[in-house]
Amino acid sequence: MSEPAGAGTPARIGLLGRGTVGGAFVELVEARAGAVAAASGRRPEIAGVLRRNEGDFERILAESDLIVELMGGLEPAREYVLAALRAGKPVVTANKQLVAQHGDELFDAAREAGVQVRFEAAVAGAVPVIRIVGEGLGSVVLERISGIVNGTTNFILSEMAATGASYGDVLARAQELGYAEADPTEDVGGADAAAKMAILARLGFHTPVDLADVSYEGITEISADDIAYARELGLSLKLLGVAERHGEAISVRVFPCFLYAGHPLAPVEGPFNAVTLEGPSITEITLSGPGAGGTETASAVLSDVVSILAGEAPVHTPGKRLEIARELDSSFYLHLEVADQPGVLAGIADVLGRNGISVKSVVQRGSGSDARLVMVTHRAPERAFYAALGEISGLDFMRLPPRAIRVVEKEYV
Amino acid sequence: MSEPAGAGTPARIGLLGRGTVGGAFVELVEARAGAVAAASGRRPEIAGVLRRNEGDFERILAESDLIVELMGGLEPAREYVLAALRAGKPVVTANKQLVAQHGDELFDAAREAGVQVRFEAAVAGAVPVIRIVGEGLGSVVLERISGIVNGTTNFILSEMAATGASYGDVLARAQELGYAEADPTEDVGGADAAAKMAILARLGFHTPVDLADVSYEGITEISADDIAYARELGLSLKLLGVAERHGEAISVRVFPCFLYAGHPLAPVEGPFNAVTLEGPSITEITLSGPGAGGTETASAVLSDVVSILAGEAPVHTPGKRLEIARELDSSFYLHLEVADQPGVLAGIADVLGRNGISVKSVVQRGSGSDARLVMVTHRAPERAFYAALGEISGLDFMRLPPRAIRVVEKEYV
Repeated sequence: MSEPAGAGTPARIGLLGRGTVGGAFVELVEARAGAVAAASGRRPEIAGVLRRNEGDFERILAESDLIVELMGGLEPAREYVLAALRAGKPVVTANKQLVAQHGDELFDAAREAGVQVRFEAAVAGAVPVIRIVGEGLGSVVLERISGIVNGTTNFILSEMAATGASYGDVLARAQELGYAEADPTEDVGGADAAAKMAILARLGFHTPVDLADVSYEGITEISADDIAYARELGLSLKLLGVAERHGEAISVRVFPCFLYAGHPLAPVEGPFNAVTLEGPSITEITLSGPGAGGTETASAVLSDVVSILAGEAPVHTPGKRLEIARELDSSFYLHLEVADQPGVLAGIADVLGRNGISVKSVVQRGSGSDARLVMVTHRAPERAFYAALGEISGLDFMRLPPRAIRVVEKEYV
Repeated sequence: MSEPAGAGTPARIGLLGRGTVGGAFVELVEARAGAVAAASGRRPEIAGVLRRNEGDFERILAESDLIVELMGGLEPAREYVLAALRAGKPVVTANKQLVAQHGDELFDAAREAGVQVRFEAAVAGAVPVIRIVGEGLGSVVLERISGIVNGTTNFILSEMAATGASYGDVLARAQELGYAEADPTEDVGGADAAAKMAILARLGFHTPVDLADVSYEGITEISADDIAYARELGLSLKLLGVAERHGEAISVRVFPCFLYAGHPLAPVEGPFNAVTLEGPSITEITLSGPGAGGTETASAVLSDVVSILAGEAPVHTPGKRLEIARELDSSFYLHLEVADQPGVLAGIADVLGRNGISVKSVVQRGSGSDARLVMVTHRAPERAFYAALGEISGLDFMRLPPRAIRVVEKEYV
């Protein structure tokens, strides 16, 4: 490949953090330096590495043309990234919590200094979803961003569906395989996905999004029964992030839900990630791939480095702050353990009807003390559904608390 | 959204062609002009439109800052696009045949003039696959690009699988629904997919690719039987484009094939398009969405316009020409209608064995004059397989010519 003029000019990279991703990044830079030089006009080289107990940030910053932050955690990562931007050095980071929690501060600092901060690796590993949501669709209006953005929980749910095993057993197996951390709370509780959805919503809707505005639930309460019953109804269970536009407001949520077979995210299995973008002029676009892995994440970091060296993309400019919509509609799966006595179905139907919830399908199973009703409702205000759920909990024929999980249909196509 | 300085400066677009896509593009420009101005610093406006019998190209060119070519066909589209580039005006085109057949000429002209030629809409409608393959992965090494890039054929194959109907009946239905042209040859024969794969291979492997180097087959010979038998083996039938790197050589092909259920392209149904990119540092990334449609295609065109106005992306620079590999390996599905007599399986096994083809699975059905053998082979040189196929055709117990279709497994993950 012929190299453009200036291909010999080095681009000195200051690397903060050298764990798994950092190591993979160093290898990738060495392997691909010539191709990057050909594509961008500048040859990348690692000018300095800040390890936990080794290296001096100020010196590395002074000797670098751009900073790659792979330390993780909020501090001192935030301090270093801000210092780099203020010194006029572009920054690439893989740190989703930093971008989700301090995005405004980072974007302001980048804009003031006229340099880029990029973070492709913060969401969905090598899948270029940040690039596409942030720049690649050319002023398209997005109505909804739906994502399976946490590989740990998707692995667990896929395994539960494939084997019928319990959440606890599959979590232990995921930990053995390295798909779940020793302390899995951030993944299984939904906080990791919430941070990623905050970032996607910010870019896709051009608005500041506070992580506190993202409501999230995890998968810790999901039972093997839920998955088995739902399969009878043709549904599969995913931990879904959904950012939606509601006129001048938006909602950003993470919740376990059942997807109909035709949903573009229904086939996403194992530790994979995928994001579906919907809007009137694009219908829907889905991007999928491995969600993590050192090499894949390092590859996403390098793609950002190349973009910076090539001078692509303006600094992200959020527009006005959109309201957070709190009155939302959903369809629900409802699993009820009831005594098998006359009037049960009528009693439940009465509660649902009075709250304006209509039922799409019902499966009744067993008899005597084992009777179960599994229902899927039509879309209705969540507030009305939860009011009905409260009433149902108090009915005297209920043997266990009712279980409710959202259901998402494919709407655009 | 606050508009950057210069947001009022108009970007005058000269539009060549005003069919379905052109009309949708005009509407989209009007609707999104403010957002484009905010993102790129310049407000797009349609300065002139060249229709079949109306408008003067030279005048439109003189009065435009960039040209959008939506005429289709090779001439005069090629002449106009080259004239625009040589006049220093960037060009956006949706014309896949123009890019596939005259890519070198277009890129040379663009490079000499220092302006961009962009063509996101030429492949997979609104799905930003050109952007990702061409620029978005930052110097990643791709080993394989696999695509379902023709919506007509994917619709036909999906319908055949869903209904059991014949190719002819489904084609007629596709024509009624507007999914197939009155003359469907370019789609069903594979030429349309071949042009798109030539473009993807050029970008993904950084090499000139001549359309003549792309070998292609269509779906006109596929029978409902093939699909029914393959389903028993857990396979689904797609018209697949595959561009692969083989050391310093590449191959670019389009052929009908069976995909295993775990393949990322197996769930792609109906008129959808999808492309899977594989390489060691990304594992695999899949992009999918509606393949065509006036609004979706217009949206892809507008995304290119925004990129040009924002000054993103260098002109594509192909590197050295890679050889075309012609000795390739494949796995095959083999469907044989045989007389039910002793020694049939032994005779076939002997031919396959002597040619170095080993069998992965066999299903035998029926008896007497209805006996059928359906086999899937392991990967072996195609030349050896076709030699075996020739020998098998001549065996005296064969009642009909053998049917062979390639089988593609998911290899990376």
